[in-house]
Amino acid sequence: MTTVGILGGGQLARMMALSGAPLGLRFLVMDTVADACAGQFAPLLVGDYRDEAALAEFAGKVDVATFDFENVPAESAEWLSARVPVFPNPRALAVAQDRLAEKTLFRELDIPVPAFAAVASRQELDQALATVGVPCILKTRRLGYDGKGQFRIRSLADADAAWQALGAQAGTVGLIVEAFVPFERELSVVAVRGRDGEFRTWPLTENWHVDGVLSASLAPARVDPALADTATGYARRLAERLDYVGVFALELFCRDGALLANELAPRVHNSGHWTIEGAETSQFQNHLRAVLGLPLGATDVRGRACMLNWIGAMPEAGPVLAEPGGHWHDYGKEPREGRKVGHATLRADAPSVLADALERVGQALGRQSQVAPPVAALRGG
Amino acid sequence: MTTVGILGGGQLARMMALSGAPLGLRFLVMDTVADACAGQFAPLLVGDYRDEAALAEFAGKVDVATFDFENVPAESAEWLSARVPVFPNPRALAVAQDRLAEKTLFRELDIPVPAFAAVASRQELDQALATVGVPCILKTRRLGYDGKGQFRIRSLADADAAWQALGAQAGTVGLIVEAFVPFERELSVVAVRGRDGEFRTWPLTENWHVDGVLSASLAPARVDPALADTATGYARRLAERLDYVGVFALELFCRDGALLANELAPRVHNSGHWTIEGAETSQFQNHLRAVLGLPLGATDVRGRACMLNWIGAMPEAGPVLAEPGGHWHDYGKEPREGRKVGHATLRADAPSVLADALERVGQALGRQSQVAPPVAALRGG
Ligand SMILES: Nc1ncnc2c1ncn2[C@@H]1O[C@H](COP(=O)(O)OP(=O)(O)O)[C@@H](O)[C@H]1O
Ligand SMILES: Nc1ncnc2c1ncn2[C@@H]1O[C@H](COP(=O)(O)OP(=O)(O)O)[C@@H](O)[C@H]1O
Ligand SMILES: [Mg+2]
Ligand SMILES: [Mg+2]
Repeated sequence: MTTVGILGGGQLARMMALSGAPLGLRFLVMDTVADACAGQFAPLLVGDYRDEAALAEFAGKVDVATFDFENVPAESAEWLSARVPVFPNPRALAVAQDRLAEKTLFRELDIPVPAFAAVASRQELDQALATVGVPCILKTRRLGYDGKGQFRIRSLADADAAWQALGAQAGTVGLIVEAFVPFERELSVVAVRGRDGEFRTWPLTENWHVDGVLSASLAPARVDPALADTATGYARRLAERLDYVGVFALELFCRDGALLANELAPRVHNSGHWTIEGAETSQFQNHLRAVLGLPLGATDVRGRACMLNWIGAMPEAGPVLAEPGGHWHDYGKEPREGRKVGHATLRADAPSVLADALERVGQALGRQSQVAPPVAALRGG
Repeated sequence: MTTVGILGGGQLARMMALSGAPLGLRFLVMDTVADACAGQFAPLLVGDYRDEAALAEFAGKVDVATFDFENVPAESAEWLSARVPVFPNPRALAVAQDRLAEKTLFRELDIPVPAFAAVASRQELDQALATVGVPCILKTRRLGYDGKGQFRIRSLADADAAWQALGAQAGTVGLIVEAFVPFERELSVVAVRGRDGEFRTWPLTENWHVDGVLSASLAPARVDPALADTATGYARRLAERLDYVGVFALELFCRDGALLANELAPRVHNSGHWTIEGAETSQFQNHLRAVLGLPLGATDVRGRACMLNWIGAMPEAGPVLAEPGGHWHDYGKEPREGRKVGHATLRADAPSVLADALERVGQALGRQSQVAPPVAALRGG
């Protein structure tokens, strides 16, 4: 009997446990809160990730550890990895936790990135604005997620407001300025690398964000095969350099037909949720296969799939369930403003069938604006 | 928050919980043993199904109840259904629990059955052998499963041995004699009916048993469309007569191109496990959708799928996981002779690809004889 420990007990841990159960695995989830939604289907250990006693209890009960949450302190991951195998390795986690380290590595690997500059003071912000140019975005280097810890700088006149918003964090999580990319599309590569170095990707996914939070994903994205190869190559280079084991996502901007890397998410990723129904093997099962050193599953897709995120509160399930390829995912969370509480995946063999289904769902739920971008993409607009 | 109670905590309850979690459901499983494998992923209440205190506790904690185990005492199901909605309804359960009631209903609905006769005494056994003829099978009317409680009568000379084996049960669970059917194939219809009467079936499945226990299933079975319609019609008639809600399987013998009904399993069924990866919606999720009054999911298939049962102990997982369409299901049970401990599903778009995969797996695991029948069917043999 193998027990997989998961640091973080949110929906990613929950879907990992549900997907890994058929492999005969047991799970132990660690989270800081007692109502972490993964705890509904797996034993939950409540504790702080910096609490050595809690970590020791966790380490004592698991055969291998992984993450649902990328912001587990790097030292905790290090501490743990001295006691039990941890995948992805703590160094990979550390790089992905820091936008500066991440972008520096992208550059080193000849992966194009938007112009960027580290910022440690108000004066350095001015310098950064001069070199990077405006419009740009001031971001915290660490601990940002779902668009949090970001300030959009449209002109030099916004510098003071940006500093007021995030300057206090310059000495704690650090800051970075990135050129604003007026992208045509956002894409992601969801990839998996095994313990033996085997590397696979699911087809590219196109993503739409609203206020920095993922709203919809469509896969496979309609892209030039050469572009897909380039994106896949970036992901492979990163995985190999980091000796990465498990699933990760590389977020990309596409502008004038070229790719710019945005960030690396060192875990199963929201833009890969469609793989549960849309691919032969889901990102969750393949992450576990990788972490356990098992053969990776096929990443072939079945037709086309569109994932719609439910933020704040779950809508009515009926309209999605009534669609032939409609699949519902309620994470069992309490509703809360801005919280990811669930998603739906709609799947169909033909793009027009999927577009029709999305339109019906958008209409029935009053979410026309959420379904509009994938519908347009499916209709070739 | 809706809590679904499941009577019986085996692999069927386990797969139901895993499949129903995304609907935002909670589960409570009741079983007589503390190590029931569904308990690894859902809260477990240990108790006897005849213990009113335990049933009352169960009823108090769930919003709706269903079964993983068809031999829950009909009185317990009745008692429960006075307190909480129970699907399928206790009458349907009662009919399916009794081979005599079941076959009588089949006949009433013009569903052909092998010749049969109830047997209450040694003398009635002789009469039954005269009317039904030999070869035939003496079976317990109730509580049989996986070929248990059956005695094959090849000639009249076997009557004494048959009576010695099962005669003691004539006064308890009752006995029935059925004509032995020298079938060419065994088929099953896995079907689902919603609270609103909506009825759907997955495509027919072909099944192979060894020593009365399911060994392999292949779907969709290659059958004449008219035969499939006939089978589906039988299932629909049964479901409507019984006002059945949920998933059930109708097991059929196919002989000289005609169908004979064997039995009705009032629950998700081993011959429907392939639907997890092989169909748009699995039998487990559709059972829950039905029980909860939600819209039923599409039962369309994706290519072809073959399920291999693992009996006694799990084989090595590697060969199955290494197949592109290979999926593993370890129920987390202790090995035990004759026990269903897991299954594998292999899926492929083309029959020959699936046949090749099965042959590789059969070879690698030393289970050539288990894969041979589906391979022959796939190769059109
Ligand atoms: N440099 C940028 N140019 C244009 N849009 C950006 C830029 N950085 C972020 N965004 C937008 O904000 C979203 C979230 O930002 P991201 O850096 O990925 O942070 P998070 O860690 O919150 O996902 C992106 O997916 C994109 O839509
Ligand atoms: N009348 C019969 N003729 C031929 N084979 C039979 C007959 N009854 C049962 N069998 C074989 O035994 C298997 C198990 O018997 P069944 O009646 O379905 O009992 P169980 O409840 O154990 O599934 C069947 O699937 C079939 O292979
Ligand atoms: Mg991002
Ligand atoms: Mg049977």
